[in-house]
Amino acid sequence: MEAKYFRDPIHGYIQVDHPIIYALINTKEFQRLRRIKQLGTSNSVFPGADHTRFSHSLGAYHIARLIVEHFETSYPDQWDTNLSLLTMVSALLHDIGHGAYSHTFEILFDTDHEAITQKIITSPESEINLILKGISDDFPNQVASVINHTHPQKQVVQLISSQIDVDRMDYLLRDTYYTGTNYGNFELSHILRVMRPSHEGICFSYQGMHAVEDYLLSRYQMYMQVYFHPASRSMEVLLQNLLKRARYLYPQQKSFFATYSPALVPFFENNNSLEDYLRLDDGVLNTYFQSWMSSNDPILSDLSDAFINRRLLKSVIYSPEQIDLIDNLKDNIARLGYDCDYYTGLHSNFKLPYDRYRPEATSPQTQIDIIQKNGDLTELSTLSPLIQALSGENYGDHRFYFPKDMLTSDDLFSKEKLKFQSHLKNGYLI
Amino acid sequence: MEAKYFRDPIHGYIQVDHPIIYALINTKEFQRLRRIKQLGTSNSVFPGADHTRFSHSLGAYHIARLIVEHFETSYPDQWDTNLSLLTMVSALLHDIGHGAYSHTFEILFDTDHEAITQKIITSPESEINLILKGISDDFPNQVASVINHTHPQKQVVQLISSQIDVDRMDYLLRDTYYTGTNYGNFELSHILRVMRPSHEGICFSYQGMHAVEDYLLSRYQMYMQVYFHPASRSMEVLLQNLLKRARYLYPQQKSFFATYSPALVPFFENNNSLEDYLRLDDGVLNTYFQSWMSSNDPILSDLSDAFINRRLLKSVIYSPEQIDLIDNLKDNIARLGYDCDYYTGLHSNFKLPYDRYRPEATSPQTQIDIIQKNGDLTELSTLSPLIQALSGENYGDHRFYFPKDMLTSDDLFSKEKLKFQSHLKNGYLI
Amino acid sequence: MEAKYFRDPIHGYIQVDHPIIYALINTKEFQRLRRIKQLGTSNSVFPGADHTRFSHSLGAYHIARLIVEHFETSYPDQWDTNLSLLTMVSALLHDIGHGAYSHTFEILFDTDHEAITQKIITSPESEINLILKGISDDFPNQVASVINHTHPQKQVVQLISSQIDVDRMDYLLRDTYYTGTNYGNFELSHILRVMRPSHEGICFSYQGMHAVEDYLLSRYQMYMQVYFHPASRSMEVLLQNLLKRARYLYPQQKSFFATYSPALVPFFENNNSLEDYLRLDDGVLNTYFQSWMSSNDPILSDLSDAFINRRLLKSVIYSPEQIDLIDNLKDNIARLGYDCDYYTGLHSNFKLPYDRYRPEATSPQTQIDIIQKNGDLTELSTLSPLIQALSGENYGDHRFYFPKDMLTSDDLFSKEKLKFQSHLKNGYLI
Amino acid sequence: MEAKYFRDPIHGYIQVDHPIIYALINTKEFQRLRRIKQLGTSNSVFPGADHTRFSHSLGAYHIARLIVEHFETSYPDQWDTNLSLLTMVSALLHDIGHGAYSHTFEILFDTDHEAITQKIITSPESEINLILKGISDDFPNQVASVINHTHPQKQVVQLISSQIDVDRMDYLLRDTYYTGTNYGNFELSHILRVMRPSHEGICFSYQGMHAVEDYLLSRYQMYMQVYFHPASRSMEVLLQNLLKRARYLYPQQKSFFATYSPALVPFFENNNSLEDYLRLDDGVLNTYFQSWMSSNDPILSDLSDAFINRRLLKSVIYSPEQIDLIDNLKDNIARLGYDCDYYTGLHSNFKLPYDRYRPEATSPQTQIDIIQKNGDLTELSTLSPLIQALSGENYGDHRFYFPKDMLTSDDLFSKEKLKFQSHLKNGYLI
Repeated sequence: MEAKYFRDPIHGYIQVDHPIIYALINTKEFQRLRRIKQLGTSNSVFPGADHTRFSHSLGAYHIARLIVEHFETSYPDQWDTNLSLLTMVSALLHDIGHGAYSHTFEILFDTDHEAITQKIITSPESEINLILKGISDDFPNQVASVINHTHPQKQVVQLISSQIDVDRMDYLLRDTYYTGTNYGNFELSHILRVMRPSHEGICFSYQGMHAVEDYLLSRYQMYMQVYFHPASRSMEVLLQNLLKRARYLYPQQKSFFATYSPALVPFFENNNSLEDYLRLDDGVLNTYFQSWMSSNDPILSDLSDAFINRRLLKSVIYSPEQIDLIDNLKDNIARLGYDCDYYTGLHSNFKLPYDRYRPEATSPQTQIDIIQKNGDLTELSTLSPLIQALSGENYGDHRFYFPKDMLTSDDLFSKEKLKFQSHLKNGYLI
Repeated sequence: MEAKYFRDPIHGYIQVDHPIIYALINTKEFQRLRRIKQLGTSNSVFPGADHTRFSHSLGAYHIARLIVEHFETSYPDQWDTNLSLLTMVSALLHDIGHGAYSHTFEILFDTDHEAITQKIITSPESEINLILKGISDDFPNQVASVINHTHPQKQVVQLISSQIDVDRMDYLLRDTYYTGTNYGNFELSHILRVMRPSHEGICFSYQGMHAVEDYLLSRYQMYMQVYFHPASRSMEVLLQNLLKRARYLYPQQKSFFATYSPALVPFFENNNSLEDYLRLDDGVLNTYFQSWMSSNDPILSDLSDAFINRRLLKSVIYSPEQIDLIDNLKDNIARLGYDCDYYTGLHSNFKLPYDRYRPEATSPQTQIDIIQKNGDLTELSTLSPLIQALSGENYGDHRFYFPKDMLTSDDLFSKEKLKFQSHLKNGYLI
Repeated sequence: MEAKYFRDPIHGYIQVDHPIIYALINTKEFQRLRRIKQLGTSNSVFPGADHTRFSHSLGAYHIARLIVEHFETSYPDQWDTNLSLLTMVSALLHDIGHGAYSHTFEILFDTDHEAITQKIITSPESEINLILKGISDDFPNQVASVINHTHPQKQVVQLISSQIDVDRMDYLLRDTYYTGTNYGNFELSHILRVMRPSHEGICFSYQGMHAVEDYLLSRYQMYMQVYFHPASRSMEVLLQNLLKRARYLYPQQKSFFATYSPALVPFFENNNSLEDYLRLDDGVLNTYFQSWMSSNDPILSDLSDAFINRRLLKSVIYSPEQIDLIDNLKDNIARLGYDCDYYTGLHSNFKLPYDRYRPEATSPQTQIDIIQKNGDLTELSTLSPLIQALSGENYGDHRFYFPKDMLTSDDLFSKEKLKFQSHLKNGYLI
Repeated sequence: MEAKYFRDPIHGYIQVDHPIIYALINTKEFQRLRRIKQLGTSNSVFPGADHTRFSHSLGAYHIARLIVEHFETSYPDQWDTNLSLLTMVSALLHDIGHGAYSHTFEILFDTDHEAITQKIITSPESEINLILKGISDDFPNQVASVINHTHPQKQVVQLISSQIDVDRMDYLLRDTYYTGTNYGNFELSHILRVMRPSHEGICFSYQGMHAVEDYLLSRYQMYMQVYFHPASRSMEVLLQNLLKRARYLYPQQKSFFATYSPALVPFFENNNSLEDYLRLDDGVLNTYFQSWMSSNDPILSDLSDAFINRRLLKSVIYSPEQIDLIDNLKDNIARLGYDCDYYTGLHSNFKLPYDRYRPEATSPQTQIDIIQKNGDLTELSTLSPLIQALSGENYGDHRFYFPKDMLTSDDLFSKEKLKFQSHLKNGYLI
């Protein structure tokens, strides 16, 4: 086919020259990703971060294409050319099951974007499945197994999912660009240049060790400063409480929800199909929330308005031992008339910056191997004192969210509020 | 107030330190701009271009703030400090009346985003009006008159709207960043440094003439290469035809449209209020189009699907004298079964890169004046042979849109199609 | 060979994987380019512009490598692989004969960097010649003929030298980066993607026409705003006068010049070899000028000091008809005690932004051809109204340089000076 | 005065609006910095890194100007406006005593750029001193004492010299830009925004803690990857050996050195004045080395050629306990005919990424304090687990340099070489 190009701020031109890739992009399941923001609620904090899973998926594909071309040219003996298309397709589709505000939505409605990814790829009702079967009957299953890490070919699996994979490399660069932060920048071209297929998967030449360190630092910083930002987590708590309220009200107000939010009914009913799931996107949910603002339930209507018009809950960092104190604080809050089930929330975010492979760990990591001058593979943290210093430990915080109102004071409830405020110091609960 | 900061990829940190500005940003009318894309259908061509009128409006405010601070410090005698807040507020609100896909929507439903901007600012039902009246009873009217160019103070009017104003400066930089093109880049800091209040409005120091030239070239290039891109205009034609079809069907299918697109009913009925208008945004319209895909009208359902899943019409450049030929081509198309009212369209885009003030022109331009070493004001194109070469002429094209199907050939209708294709050469109609 | 990489701010990593290229880089003739600034005196105006002909030459090679790889892969029938090395070598060596402050130096000492380039490549005394002969006896001549445009293969010649070639593409990007201006930026990757070998030389796909337009505008702007900057031309005038004075003094003060500037003696004597030429670089000349500051000739010592410590002459734009007036002005200047032979100067800079091929022109240009959808080649300015507007005309100015002193007034000579100043208005001579 | 602007790739426009600053820039001592590269020998590895101490000094001044303006406006009670000029002047002049290849030069000739900085500022023979005395008789001493940390005003001292000061902030950004690495990028504007005068010196608002972390990581990475690069250290070892050889030869060959390197004679004679020191710059030294290539001493001539034409020594990392092994290796090398005094060298580079103030340390650091919401000052590493992990430890390596020849093998000396090579593994000595 004549190559097609997508202009992309991160990668310049994204070239598509395989008809299967082009056909996949044009499916309705993939076009749907245009309507789902990559960072969910983060654009409430970073107003520039309106980018979608569509451009991220193209970007992940693009990086995969650069890698397989490099492997085909430079390492013909260690890379099986037959895996190139599988790698590119898996990269393109790795997020295909993501939905609107997935992380929050899943908590409430017991959906699972990873399971849905598998379903979209393997179910005969999707356009994507039809196209993949054009390669071979087994191809959909192969793609699905790469994405869920069960494919026996470790090189492909690691390219799609490991501590340094096409997904993470694209989203760090993209999120940093669209948020306008600089933290996530690292040298993609340098990393791609030193990446090599190894017997066990993927490794990196010792000449690129610093670029890999830099990537890991960038990732750490993006987690701490963007992904774990207290204000976007506040929006998530709001959204969670809002959906919880809707689910609670649904049995009493079925007709209201059927009229104003028809596509959510199968989820309230706990009886949803793939088609139902694919009907949802950011615009659909926001449209529903806007219409819920006219509900006669004051909590539903107020939370919808708070979410749509960005009236945030405030938060404080707590430690797990302080959970009893939080119960006391909730009593304070309740005394002002707030229903704490819907006006407070706990939100914890933790991230492991890097770890070597530890079979005994809860979620063992695919370690990063450096290939030395003489061909030996050495695990990164034994070579890098910087990564050693960061390795194996979780970073993040637990936050308790509550109404902003609790931080003011000049009113009827000022005594209650001052008592509440006496437990807050420099952002920590005391 | 303690300054608030919005992190922005274009300007770094956007500082808000006036409580009125902060209150305006938090109104529901302004927050609504978060749900309206700056470039409408352009993200179908430039997948990174998902930025909204919200971030653009913040950016225009930010540039206005930089300018008025500069004027207050450097030109205290030529700049009236009392105008600073008026300038910043007008910059922030200049697009407040924009709606979802405004340009196309207005053609079909006879709305007018400029009139709505005036209404939002001056109508007592808006949160914005309430806040503006906090300054003075007359302040809403002042802001409205700056935005519609009737305010007597020419400096403020030109900062908000002229050939080089805060609106254009922000959107060029922003659109170039989000599309990933480089064409729109120019040196904002240089231009701001050489901008000065003059007796008649705004002028630029001769030391910055080249930066102004560069800005005009950037603007020209963005028009030619982004704003006039044939594929995003294809989406506009599709959208126009889709809405036309819906309006045509409405009288027969009122209940269908009331169920699946309630917020559009007042527009179908030609009886809409400001509140109705503010209910619409990109997500609401897209939600409706998605539900129209299940309509039993094949044209409505097909066009909705084409718009949502990005199946584009193709196009060719024509000249006005070829309008009869186009009628013949429509006959060809109709013979394949297409209703040309909904499957073809004409779309013209033209832009004047620059012009000096010509009172006799259809829309006279505010010319750009350069202040010389000795204080004389001289119109730009007399100093710059480059701008002289581009001045006073419109650039752009007329395009005829038609089904992509007409460009294939190996089927029943191939004879009809070949005849059609014989009139196309290198993108031009012959 | 194992690939070597040069880290470059413009291109990221410059890869060298051909042993001939690597060997050429390591010759003393090529390493010498590390000691010659790309922009000569421009760093007196743009303090960041300290980059050298070494990094520019690597960059030109890098672009050539990208192009020939692209041609080999995408146009195997139109591109002769045997020409790839020739192209890369010619790109690397195109500036090898440049010397310290060449343009000015040549005027005074009748050297010619193009002739010297030919000589370095073809003369058996150079390390470069030795390496090139490793390919074939004829290879040095081939390279030399590509660089002087006499090689019969038009594709290679145009890649190295035409209105859009590897030299210009690298220097625009590099000079814009190091000066910190944005004018010279254009989309290299886009241009490289649409560049194609044609029967007659090189052409560009119609999809890239806008990128080519953008390149030409960038080039125009860099000429007007960087290369023709009045202050760096002032440094050139100073340098020219300084060398002229030295040449004038030499016959009387041979021993002074032999002691303090031994490597210049062959040039004063009009009897220099290639080896003599290669001994000069920016550091050597500056070292000499610093030592000339202690000369007992007040003019030599003062001009040396002015050049080293950046005391600039001032200038005014004149038109050729005003040449008599300039003589009068020189009389004014002389009356203050200045020797006008050394304290004034004329400097003209003009550039043709673009032209189609005109066999009758003084220096006919290789026009830029656009390949249309149907394969036709069309000259750029017939397709682009923007380029049409700029085409065929020279832009630039004539400047008269004089002592800054003439612009002050409160002294003995104020009457003389005021008379002088009465002929200056807004930077123009009147 | 009318503001002057220097165009700078890092900061855009550097504004100078105080006549003292402008006068200082135009002194011969400051203009001399144009001829001294910021990174010494690093451009042998990073060919783009040709920037000078002139542009760095302007950049440090610029950052100082931004800070004092910010302090004057936002913290009028904590910042004494009378210190603003002192701060800007100290920033501008902090490197004024740097010479050509200072770090290496000082080892050989017992000069000290810090002492010379003091001398230039306070000695009546300098143009700088004359200008500074224009402010007050005591002003030169004040500036000198800020730069050598003895000034009692801690705020000013810390702005000029601490773990996060105007010098480091400028050079990280500048060196990263000119080397083309991305490691040194951090958010200057964010850091400047959160920087505040405190009672004890300078502190940073808790909202900017992440930006400070990012700065420290950037600094760490630049040290590891640019400043400690083995190849530029190779050039330093070469230079050191070359100057050592010259010093050794001088007593026997005084006339040779007086003819070919007159400005070095006072240093060979151990009897140099400030004027002598200021006569040296990169160009002068390189000119001398080029002329030394014709020396009849084979070592001097070969090392000069190696330095000028970039023939590097190779290196291996060793640990201090291996010093005996190195002696053995030197024996191997000597057996090939190399004089190890001039063809080998040890080079150690270590850096503390960050430390809190420890009065007992060899060089106690000025710790970075974070000001909390409630006004408490807290030392950075107690708040940041990332900085805690890096704190208090030195990172770097010891390297042994030797002739590249030792790594080949197919010759007479192959047995000797193989023995040598058997002690090298993956870049480490074993």
